[in-house]
Amino acid sequence: MIQEGTIIENEIREKITQVEQEHNIKLSTTQKIMLCIRGPITTILDVLYGEVNLFMLDQHFEKSDERIADLLKISEGDQIDYREVIVHKNGRPLVYALSYIPTSRITDKIMKDLKEERLTTGKIIDKNYIETTRVIKKIYIEKPTPTQVELFKTQEDMLTREYIMFHDKKVVIWTKESYPLSYFKV
Amino acid sequence: MIQEGTIIENEIREKITQVEQEHNIKLSTTQKIMLCIRGPITTILDVLYGEVNLFMLDQHFEKSDERIADLLKISEGDQIDYREVIVHKNGRPLVYALSYIPTSRITDKIMKDLKEERLTTGKIIDKNYIETTRVIKKIYIEKPTPTQVELFKTQEDMLTREYIMFHDKKVVIWTKESYPLSYFKV
Repeated sequence: MIQEGTIIENEIREKITQVEQEHNIKLSTTQKIMLCIRGPITTILDVLYGEVNLFMLDQHFEKSDERIADLLKISEGDQIDYREVIVHKNGRPLVYALSYIPTSRITDKIMKDLKEERLTTGKIIDKNYIETTRVIKKIYIEKPTPTQVELFKTQEDMLTREYIMFHDKKVVIWTKESYPLSYFKV
Repeated sequence: MIQEGTIIENEIREKITQVEQEHNIKLSTTQKIMLCIRGPITTILDVLYGEVNLFMLDQHFEKSDERIADLLKISEGDQIDYREVIVHKNGRPLVYALSYIPTSRITDKIMKDLKEERLTTGKIIDKNYIETTRVIKKIYIEKPTPTQVELFKTQEDMLTREYIMFHDKKVVIWTKESYPLSYFKV
């Protein structure tokens, strides 16, 4: 069930060290923890900042292309829910998150939560007591997209991770989380 | 499936604030995160300290008494695996963990890992790709036990949380984690 390219347990530490060395930076304790945890990042943000909220940037159904089909291990053309959100505290953006969800693998109840609720995918999974395994796939730093530049009002590099949740041994959510490198330094 | 006394999502933050107020202390960011995450605490310790190790204090089978049977939702007298460990870095104790595991609910493979491997229960669950939900039950500060005084060489109060992992909608592991209040302040 481990997919090629998956970062396994001991490699998370090495991957974080590698990112630090490649970019000649020191990540903070909070940044490191936010990269390595398996649960929803919003739980941490809630605890650190008081309750945080979600702003939905985009949500729509689309047919998966080759890249997305490969990430989710579905057939090309299978329908996915595309979900792009910003977690914010009183309007101050904290974390950008993009998720792909294969619609055939989730229940109507989850789909309702995805559409209606102001909750991140991780929280929706937890709230519905869906049993999962969670695997961190990638940790890296990248240039911001134009959307991110506009949202975060900065050209700074983005600290990014990609992770996957499995249920019934199938991928149910692929997520990418990003935030400017200067965030969560304390 | 939510049990009485369970701390649900939004209450984790309130519970942490309550502990701070009751004891007139400020918990650090790392402490707060360690209290609220659902994944294995060792993943965080690995990332913060480099690879950490386990020292097994005690492991044995016993018949559950009324209290343990209630925690695990099993019948009194059902067999459990009692597992008491210290997570340490080069001999310096970091976290004390006590787990109760209802043996009838886990596979032979997991039992083998519990007995032989130098891994925390959380890591064993992740390593074997067991799909779970995880619920934080309690967060509190308590006096150290004589064992903890000896291990940590301090009379300091212990920051403690109790949490549960569910698989197939049944409790598979109950865990209590503790460490001296002065730990993980940075």
